[in-house]
Amino acid sequence: MDMKKYAALYKNELLKEVVPFWEKNSLDTVHGGYFTCLNENGEVFDTDKFMWLQARQAWMFSTLFTQVEAKENWKDAAKLGIDFMKKHGRDAQGNWYFSLTKEGRPLVQAYNIFSDCFAAMAFGAYYKLDSKKEYAAIAKATFQNILQRQENPKGKYNKTYPGTREMQNFALPMILCNLALELDHLLEKEQVAQLTEGISDLILNKFYQEESGLVYENIASNCTLVDSFEGRLLNPGHAIEAMWFLMDLGAKNGDNALIAKAEKIMFQQLEYGWDKEHEGIFYFLDAKGNPPQQLEWDQKLWWVHLETLVALSKSIRLTGNPKAKEWFEKVHDYTWNHFRDSDKGGEWFGYLNRRGEPLLKLKGGKWKGCFHVPRALLQVSNTLNNII
Amino acid sequence: MDMKKYAALYKNELLKEVVPFWEKNSLDTVHGGYFTCLNENGEVFDTDKFMWLQARQAWMFSTLFTQVEAKENWKDAAKLGIDFMKKHGRDAQGNWYFSLTKEGRPLVQAYNIFSDCFAAMAFGAYYKLDSKKEYAAIAKATFQNILQRQENPKGKYNKTYPGTREMQNFALPMILCNLALELDHLLEKEQVAQLTEGISDLILNKFYQEESGLVYENIASNCTLVDSFEGRLLNPGHAIEAMWFLMDLGAKNGDNALIAKAEKIMFQQLEYGWDKEHEGIFYFLDAKGNPPQQLEWDQKLWWVHLETLVALSKSIRLTGNPKAKEWFEKVHDYTWNHFRDSDKGGEWFGYLNRRGEPLLKLKGGKWKGCFHVPRALLQVSNTLNNII
Repeated sequence: MDMKKYAALYKNELLKEVVPFWEKNSLDTVHGGYFTCLNENGEVFDTDKFMWLQARQAWMFSTLFTQVEAKENWKDAAKLGIDFMKKHGRDAQGNWYFSLTKEGRPLVQAYNIFSDCFAAMAFGAYYKLDSKKEYAAIAKATFQNILQRQENPKGKYNKTYPGTREMQNFALPMILCNLALELDHLLEKEQVAQLTEGISDLILNKFYQEESGLVYENIASNCTLVDSFEGRLLNPGHAIEAMWFLMDLGAKNGDNALIAKAEKIMFQQLEYGWDKEHEGIFYFLDAKGNPPQQLEWDQKLWWVHLETLVALSKSIRLTGNPKAKEWFEKVHDYTWNHFRDSDKGGEWFGYLNRRGEPLLKLKGGKWKGCFHVPRALLQVSNTLNNII
Repeated sequence: MDMKKYAALYKNELLKEVVPFWEKNSLDTVHGGYFTCLNENGEVFDTDKFMWLQARQAWMFSTLFTQVEAKENWKDAAKLGIDFMKKHGRDAQGNWYFSLTKEGRPLVQAYNIFSDCFAAMAFGAYYKLDSKKEYAAIAKATFQNILQRQENPKGKYNKTYPGTREMQNFALPMILCNLALELDHLLEKEQVAQLTEGISDLILNKFYQEESGLVYENIASNCTLVDSFEGRLLNPGHAIEAMWFLMDLGAKNGDNALIAKAEKIMFQQLEYGWDKEHEGIFYFLDAKGNPPQQLEWDQKLWWVHLETLVALSKSIRLTGNPKAKEWFEKVHDYTWNHFRDSDKGGEWFGYLNRRGEPLLKLKGGKWKGCFHVPRALLQVSNTLNNII
């Protein structure tokens, strides 16, 4: 299929199926914010509000408004989350809670720095469509707070005994790379450049190990490999998602060497993570082939496959690599055949067992909201549309 | 098959396959303690030492010595764990770390009160074969410490925001019931009676809800049901295991009403938790039939099935219920056909997917050690041997 046809297909799915699903089912017009726990019919099965998903949905509707069409409905939908978060989301230190009741009462403390990352992203995006200083201020204050907390992101909730085996996790630098680009319009150029340079180096030369060709999910503080459950852990989808963040950085800076390296690493993780028996990409693997700790290791998750499609579309556009086209078609077929709800439409399924059968029939939950499916559909359609 | 033949079969498996596996592969004669991460060939694939499993294995070898045969090898194996734990296991407050390096350096802080529960159990059991005051003192001090911590077992690591929705978890009262019986020889009669009475009431009248016939994994502090992921969570194997602890308590106190109630609840959980499509007992379910949060919900775990066999054997012995015999044979067939390693023998597999195929080929890991398989084989063989 012609790549432009894929672009149209992805855009159509975004605007006709996925976005309407969230508009119809998730807006809490009584208390503000969004319901994200939605069953296969779009009915709310749990009313708690998880900050990751509140923020990501506010970001998504803001982004649709600025990048697709200035629809008032989308602005209103974004504002519903932004207002709820502004009013209820932070503790006295300005850290973002992990979860709230539907009314906005805190349930789980601000132990999780990714709540802050996604909150900063949301307010940064919303500021683009409503330039009140307050929104920029919240985004910037949250961002500085993240940088201050980054050495010990879990704070007092960190259970690691100091000094024996201190490790660093891949997720924070990865998200910070994307976040710095998302907040480009609010941060000093110098700060963005310095931060993203440090992160690229950390990811490409420390978390990625040339010898094995693998991106490790955790390395020691001194950047060596550790032979423990955490130290051997691989999360191919995570690494692949980070590679498209780095390709974006390369494209912004005109850095073709960075693009080439990110592309190479992306293919290595994809080939390593691909399930040759049942297709799809494994969720977790052990770098030495030992049994992973995670019982869900062999499951197929929506975001892993959607982020891979984004990465492959960037690779097609930026390098024209024919291997990217082949892989795109293969991953596209698997993803659309298994995650898309061919029966009821709307948002896609999220969790499949190793054989590709739905493990949970939910459309949204505690960790799945209005984010990876619509963001990927938008990213892929924009990227493939821009092929020269 | 005659129940006495099952008794012989279980005892033979314990003494010819399972115990030798751990004796051969897990003893760390260099640093003390046990290696528990063992692959299908019994080879060590990770050397970290997890307190739950150190303590449980020390308890198991102590119990084999006192209940099966006074073999010096078993005493030595128990002492290997006891000495290691005594030397390296506790922080300055006397709380037990969660994990240590193979040399005994702390890795993960004492956030998990079950480390303390199993440590008290281990020292209590070891004291039965070596009556040094020190062992009794460690068991008793740890037990008192657990009672003091029980209102907020996670201490500063507790992430729940105070006052919004405080909940209590089933695991601690459940383990305390078993622990009070295990430490019977060290505690005041009065204390054991008071504690177990309170726990039975809490389990039978609060965590168990007559109307639904279900045992909930979490209820509110005020003992009401909560409609949240945690509040809807069911763990049938956990509830079934607790029911045999209560049957033991009933047998000790000659309380037939308690035995009858525990037996009834056990059958309700078993029937509810049984997978009618692929057999075996689900790991997690949602009380309202919503998608559970746990991605491993449909997997079949060794301990769930082994603890169910223990509960059914107690039911057969204490009430002679013919339904218990039928279920015992059904669960026995599933368990022996799917978890036992018919090829290589030794310890059994632990983790199967919904279809009953091995998900991980490990014999031991971070959460699976020398405990549920040998304890269940011993319990079932002793119990069925005592049928009049």
